[in-house]
Amino acid sequence: MRIAIDAMGGDNAPDEIIAGVMESVEHLDKDDELILVGSEEIIEERLRSLKLRKGAVTIVHAPDVIGMDEVPIETLRKKPKSSIAVLSKLAKRGQTDAVISAGNTGACVAAFQMRMRNLPGVNRPGIAVVFPTPEGPVVICDVGANIACKPINLYQYAVMASLYSKHLLGIDNPRVGLMSIGAEDAKGNEVVKKTRELMKSDSNMNFVGNIEGRDIFEGTCDVVTCEGFVGNVILKLTEGLVDGLFKAIKYELIEEKPQLAMEFKPVVTRIYKKYDYNTYGGAPLLGVNGTALICHGSSQSRTIKNAILASKEFHTEKINDKIIECLSGTCVRTTD
Amino acid sequence: MRIAIDAMGGDNAPDEIIAGVMESVEHLDKDDELILVGSEEIIEERLRSLKLRKGAVTIVHAPDVIGMDEVPIETLRKKPKSSIAVLSKLAKRGQTDAVISAGNTGACVAAFQMRMRNLPGVNRPGIAVVFPTPEGPVVICDVGANIACKPINLYQYAVMASLYSKHLLGIDNPRVGLMSIGAEDAKGNEVVKKTRELMKSDSNMNFVGNIEGRDIFEGTCDVVTCEGFVGNVILKLTEGLVDGLFKAIKYELIEEKPQLAMEFKPVVTRIYKKYDYNTYGGAPLLGVNGTALICHGSSQSRTIKNAILASKEFHTEKINDKIIECLSGTCVRTTD
Repeated sequence: MRIAIDAMGGDNAPDEIIAGVMESVEHLDKDDELILVGSEEIIEERLRSLKLRKGAVTIVHAPDVIGMDEVPIETLRKKPKSSIAVLSKLAKRGQTDAVISAGNTGACVAAFQMRMRNLPGVNRPGIAVVFPTPEGPVVICDVGANIACKPINLYQYAVMASLYSKHLLGIDNPRVGLMSIGAEDAKGNEVVKKTRELMKSDSNMNFVGNIEGRDIFEGTCDVVTCEGFVGNVILKLTEGLVDGLFKAIKYELIEEKPQLAMEFKPVVTRIYKKYDYNTYGGAPLLGVNGTALICHGSSQSRTIKNAILASKEFHTEKINDKIIECLSGTCVRTTD
Repeated sequence: MRIAIDAMGGDNAPDEIIAGVMESVEHLDKDDELILVGSEEIIEERLRSLKLRKGAVTIVHAPDVIGMDEVPIETLRKKPKSSIAVLSKLAKRGQTDAVISAGNTGACVAAFQMRMRNLPGVNRPGIAVVFPTPEGPVVICDVGANIACKPINLYQYAVMASLYSKHLLGIDNPRVGLMSIGAEDAKGNEVVKKTRELMKSDSNMNFVGNIEGRDIFEGTCDVVTCEGFVGNVILKLTEGLVDGLFKAIKYELIEEKPQLAMEFKPVVTRIYKKYDYNTYGGAPLLGVNGTALICHGSSQSRTIKNAILASKEFHTEKINDKIIECLSGTCVRTTD
């Protein structure tokens, strides 16, 4: 399998990206190929300074970089030789089986959608993120690819994320929740209400009904479908709140008894390790015709390593074939 | 001042409500009047069993109760003698200066809007909740009154929540953030983009631009304006995540060293006390022509006591006059 990685994407590029790629090598099969996309000069220089053998990877030159804060579509047009643009073209031409980037999320979504196209039957791709919770991993889709969701999109996110949960996280018959503002049927906006009807009409889906924000952490469901705007707020709020709470705890520990703060450290380490999103590597863009993973901008080498392994599993488990099969078998066809 | 409280609303009604009302008495002025709305029989019986003097309060009989999970508007119509319906009618007839309920939020919003009407210049009322954060209190509006927001609504929530932050939380020139999925101008859905223009056109507003979920806890702003659906998810996610994280910490503490779990207890108490939303009592429904506070369904006596004191402050500080003045002085007039 050929896996192409954006060497220039993310806050820690290219060093952490290249390091992650190298760390992944020993976990891959002999005939797997790794392709680093980015400035040839920079990549080669870093490989030398990191004392890494170049032999393990192929470099595809892409002289430009899309900044993390640049406007996605506009910049993609202006920078056709950016690493994200080149990455997506490799996928389009069938020169790679998977693409991975920790770069500008909006640019990744736009480029991958445009070049890879959608899987047959899929109306709009969505980004699926795994939330590690005390009750098990919860897949939330979408977290930012589609901020003008129609009911059919929300329904399809539920189908795709369920297949991901089942085949990659090993959850049998995943329970699906529809993010709303109350558990009752009547709660939610018009899109949620219509989606609810679509979900109910699919007898293959293990739909548990509307859920609220707090349910994500309470073991109510294994899959959450929501609009990209809401999912993005959920994702970033969770990051900020966890960080903020640990800061507050540290402060109070020191106030209470400084020794206690020291003793608490291994507990924090345990928790960050146990609930570490880096374990899952990256978030798949579900619904594109290929394997595309988008990683957190602050990805470290192990995030990238895990993303590479996750892309291999996604590809090997033929998740996309299962999505096509499942969507072609469902009676839900509305384009509302 | 006359303050009417729904004796039957919330998970702990009527006991905690009645206890909270009684606790508030010593903090009020002699000419303040407290009105308990609910079943006369039940309230009198509880006052007796709680060994409380009836003299301090007036009872207005309302034989019905709207359940926490009942469909708001439909149930309001079916139960015109429910405590929430009667409460809102007292406000309409000018028989009370403030209304407070920990009951069905949707029913409160519907009843208060319908009976109290909007303040001149306000298009739609919004619920404002104070989030206690390590960087100070952040007011988020709306958290569920309006799930089909127009830009003018989001703009007005920012204006009203700023006045609340300034005059009730003592924050000088509160910084306002617009909840979106990225800080850049181009990020966000159409409603957010249009709202951004309205915010920028108001030179009196201390608008800091788009914010992301994580910014709530990072001291970026004092006021957040967002759509009710998003705000409600934020509110409930925060509750669930904090509870979940403390559970996870407890588990790991016990795994690490059971003694540590004991020592950690006062720290948890400190944090819950410091970041206690009960301090703020209830969430004002900003924009209605009167003082209306909606409390958490799980309100305890001190929540109710604090809500009563908060309603008095809201009324005394003439927040509504300031809202009218501010909105009449702004050039933002679109009804898009």
